[in-house]
Amino acid sequence: MSDRRTRRRALQCTVLAFACVLGSGQAADKPAQKAAAHSKSTSDILAASKPTDWRPLDPENTLYLELPSGRVVIELAPAFAPLHADNIRTLVREKYFDGLAILRSQDNYVVQWGDPYEDEKTARPLGSAKKTLAPEFTAAINAKIPFTRLPDSDGYAPQVGFSQGFPVGRNPKTGQTWLTHCYGALGVARGNEADSGNGSGLYVIIGNAPRHLDRNIAVVGRVVQGIEKLSVMPRGTGQLGFYEKPEQRTPISTIRLAADVPDAERSKLEVLRTDSATFAAVAEARRNRHDDWYIAPAGHVDVCNVLIPVRPIADAATSGDGKAAAGK
Amino acid sequence: MSDRRTRRRALQCTVLAFACVLGSGQAADKPAQKAAAHSKSTSDILAASKPTDWRPLDPENTLYLELPSGRVVIELAPAFAPLHADNIRTLVREKYFDGLAILRSQDNYVVQWGDPYEDEKTARPLGSAKKTLAPEFTAAINAKIPFTRLPDSDGYAPQVGFSQGFPVGRNPKTGQTWLTHCYGALGVARGNEADSGNGSGLYVIIGNAPRHLDRNIAVVGRVVQGIEKLSVMPRGTGQLGFYEKPEQRTPISTIRLAADVPDAERSKLEVLRTDSATFAAVAEARRNRHDDWYIAPAGHVDVCNVLIPVRPIADAATSGDGKAAAGK
Repeated sequence: MSDRRTRRRALQCTVLAFACVLGSGQAADKPAQKAAAHSKSTSDILAASKPTDWRPLDPENTLYLELPSGRVVIELAPAFAPLHADNIRTLVREKYFDGLAILRSQDNYVVQWGDPYEDEKTARPLGSAKKTLAPEFTAAINAKIPFTRLPDSDGYAPQVGFSQGFPVGRNPKTGQTWLTHCYGALGVARGNEADSGNGSGLYVIIGNAPRHLDRNIAVVGRVVQGIEKLSVMPRGTGQLGFYEKPEQRTPISTIRLAADVPDAERSKLEVLRTDSATFAAVAEARRNRHDDWYIAPAGHVDVCNVLIPVRPIADAATSGDGKAAAGK
Repeated sequence: MSDRRTRRRALQCTVLAFACVLGSGQAADKPAQKAAAHSKSTSDILAASKPTDWRPLDPENTLYLELPSGRVVIELAPAFAPLHADNIRTLVREKYFDGLAILRSQDNYVVQWGDPYEDEKTARPLGSAKKTLAPEFTAAINAKIPFTRLPDSDGYAPQVGFSQGFPVGRNPKTGQTWLTHCYGALGVARGNEADSGNGSGLYVIIGNAPRHLDRNIAVVGRVVQGIEKLSVMPRGTGQLGFYEKPEQRTPISTIRLAADVPDAERSKLEVLRTDSATFAAVAEARRNRHDDWYIAPAGHVDVCNVLIPVRPIADAATSGDGKAAAGK
């Protein structure tokens, strides 16, 4: 009975949007006050969306990172880092990552994977992939990169917003735009040399958005499903969260491009279009909540605090790891 | 040999500050360029600090959350939420939390614990602790709450800064100040009623700072050590990350006040004083890095991106879980 009550409370909180934090006692007992002043929850907004508000993932730009715990689905952003996206596709198709491992898990920061051996004698060959690439830390603003501005101020960028499902920063004066280091961002590890990142070492942000990294390193995509498989990885005990012993590293079974995976095994997901009115409503729901729980709507939303919704494509065959993360 | 090289790379990156993200190849081979223009790393800044820059934890305001995986050390902020801090001390001293469990782990959001039973017949009695408390979502600005301003802009608060080791927001017009929901913040779960939070349900932020919660819920402290024990907890499969089955909940052995723990078992930690010049230098190191790796210093730092350093007290007996997290 108590678990049922807890679940009822959880459902009620879902109606209030997933920002609800449960407390003791009374929420389930009082009727909703001020119902007329309630803003819609994210769930309500998404339930009212049109099919054309959603965009299926492009199999040529979707990676499946297959771990013992399951699949992490990553979308690449070739408009922002075409050379790196291309090199990563080459590495993936030549099975470079198969049998490599997660090297690092640093709390409130990153999970990183790649080749633990950097000595040329023992490092894994890159095959046809390039060893150095022109840096793609930002991209030139151009017509091929759509931009939906988020009107809220931002300390790290003159403008912020979204582009085809990715959170971005933008500087009209310098004519540059870039993917922001939000939770789930996929970036290319590099050394000191600006061209030393090539995609053979990759990291994902699993903590508070380290926006100071923006424009210093190539961000090439973001995790759209399964990030919890990375964020729960035991933290490495070495410096910077590197694992001290090889046996501590979670192995990577393989990384594959969705395009190379039989259709029945693909994760059939769609992402809310970030240029849609529905998405603008999602951002507003984060910016100003009016409901039984909120007392002081923020009046502001950070670009990394607007979660870009992903859901399974309805009626798609979902064999494989096709469960969607609601609201993420 | 390769592991040694990886470790050397890691050490070199530490010199460059823990923002370094390793890449392939060349960093260890080139001499440091532009050495004269280098800003100090956080490690260097802390190594040069004075002993008086550091403040030991107050045992009356320090909680030890003891889990099977070890200890999480939490500092309370009674200046901001005196009633809640008091009620939590009462609950802790009456062993309310002993044998309770982690109820919820929601990715990029919170870990929460308390009593899974909310029905009055089966809920655990609160003992001498109060069932409802006047809300302490903000505190009145007053002389007892010191404030060191962070000059950077913030979208969620007119002013941000630090107070006795805690990140804070502040509104001079309304005369209110509050603890911000940064990573590691400890908050009081509540229902819809503003007075329904009492400290028997608590949560910790384990994802991107949900600043929209500021001023809507009482933040009463922050984790100073051991947060990784919470952030790696398997994510609950129920709504909002609640565990669906009781056996999935990590049990809480006990929560104790450091003051009630024998001295030899205490975690001897000190926190960098946030009103010190050393701390201002740490914030600046985050705001503007000049070194071999950074190309585009941010020129801005977010209040939740200035990590407040904690370290073991030198020469203290460190039996118990006394290892410090460098730079956190």
